[in-house]
Amino acid sequence: MDTRPIGIFDSGVGGLTVVKQVMKVMPHENIVYFGDTARVPYGTKSKDTVTKFSLQIIRFLQTKNVKAIIVACNTASSNSLEEMRKAFDLPIFGVVVPGVEAALRATKNGKVGIIGTAATVRSHAYEEMIQKKNPEIQVFSKACPLFVPLAEEGWTDNEVSSFAAKRYLTELVEKGIDSLVLGCTHYPLLKRCIGTTVGDAIKLVDPAKATAQQVMAFLAQQDQRNESETYGTRNFYLSDRTDMFGFLCQKALKQPYEAEIIDIEKY
Amino acid sequence: MDTRPIGIFDSGVGGLTVVKQVMKVMPHENIVYFGDTARVPYGTKSKDTVTKFSLQIIRFLQTKNVKAIIVACNTASSNSLEEMRKAFDLPIFGVVVPGVEAALRATKNGKVGIIGTAATVRSHAYEEMIQKKNPEIQVFSKACPLFVPLAEEGWTDNEVSSFAAKRYLTELVEKGIDSLVLGCTHYPLLKRCIGTTVGDAIKLVDPAKATAQQVMAFLAQQDQRNESETYGTRNFYLSDRTDMFGFLCQKALKQPYEAEIIDIEKY
Repeated sequence: MDTRPIGIFDSGVGGLTVVKQVMKVMPHENIVYFGDTARVPYGTKSKDTVTKFSLQIIRFLQTKNVKAIIVACNTASSNSLEEMRKAFDLPIFGVVVPGVEAALRATKNGKVGIIGTAATVRSHAYEEMIQKKNPEIQVFSKACPLFVPLAEEGWTDNEVSSFAAKRYLTELVEKGIDSLVLGCTHYPLLKRCIGTTVGDAIKLVDPAKATAQQVMAFLAQQDQRNESETYGTRNFYLSDRTDMFGFLCQKALKQPYEAEIIDIEKY
Repeated sequence: MDTRPIGIFDSGVGGLTVVKQVMKVMPHENIVYFGDTARVPYGTKSKDTVTKFSLQIIRFLQTKNVKAIIVACNTASSNSLEEMRKAFDLPIFGVVVPGVEAALRATKNGKVGIIGTAATVRSHAYEEMIQKKNPEIQVFSKACPLFVPLAEEGWTDNEVSSFAAKRYLTELVEKGIDSLVLGCTHYPLLKRCIGTTVGDAIKLVDPAKATAQQVMAFLAQQDQRNESETYGTRNFYLSDRTDMFGFLCQKALKQPYEAEIIDIEKY
């Protein structure tokens, strides 16, 4: 038994959709969340910059004595997971492998779509992992850079998001995919709009749930679950104030939390 | 006569639209440009964070021995100009005052619209400056957070940008404005779409040109113009690599330039 917290980080507040799944699957675990709201988004930035930011954040989370790290951010998971694992002697989980496994369970016809930020798609991390696990699967990827700002504007289901979704997703639908990985923590907020655009025949896969389950299995195997009877504590840290935090706490976690602002560049 | 360069900075590469105007008005001046592409955008971030980033950038530009600074970024100009001027013994020019003067020249009916990032609009910098210069002018402001990512996606004139522009601008048109300040360096890239949406009767005001003229007048008055016969040198620095730099060099400056990547967090 290990009562130390799980560290979860994201480029911004989108990772609260991952916190939600971790709270659901492991309600007794303590959680420390960091959102890099001063430097968000990561999805338009280079691998070197995403790696540098990610290493700083793990150095910060280590000061909170975490027992494991979940990289909620798809861009960081896709670009920098290896560098993080090399640099730290800590179990570090990305969202790509669980997302891929969920997609392989979901597809019947072997045609899988992946949507994410420009940096996630450019990394080819999802494609390579799918090819490794099943080389017969056909993968079709598409970067959807507007989806993050649309979600942050609250335009999750109007004519602007609808036309943007049509522009991005029509080519994937035409390829005949039967499942679509939402490869960015913001995209579940646009689920209805994306679902309407691609149609009911295409299953939407959110890697967050599969990630929470993978971490739970790992902690159980290591005998590191928190077996307290009480619900875990949740502590939130951001690198800049943002109204989106309160909004997403309500929307994803259904309760208000306070966040402490820290200077991440010091780490 | 003073051959030291003029420092120009922006949250990203949008400020190249200001470089363009400076090169046009003062072709013999040397220019050092910094774009904070690792931490872009500023428009969704807090005043404290924008101020901190701006001070770091001026410390960097000082190492290039600049004689004056142009804050091309509307968000930094609106939120942090006073803090910058307090911290440095250098002439520092924002885009708000020249933008306001150009708007006052443009309006006939005394109703002026301002569009910008969330942080620019929240600062009320444009409104306060207009009220100070002419309390009879009515000002209507609107934040348009989607315009920056739309410009960066290259969706400057399609149905997505058109519906976004309608959502943002209809209320300003209904107020009866006759001039509209493009209070963000990215917005001139969407000029056609914005113009079509608001109609020919509303004049679009770009603060960049007026800013370049203000700086030229200041340098002339101080006897600090660069009177070399040759064209000035232009040096570009970014905090992260981005394809947008090459794209905008061609689009705004009509020629290719190289940019050097520097670690701005060290300054």
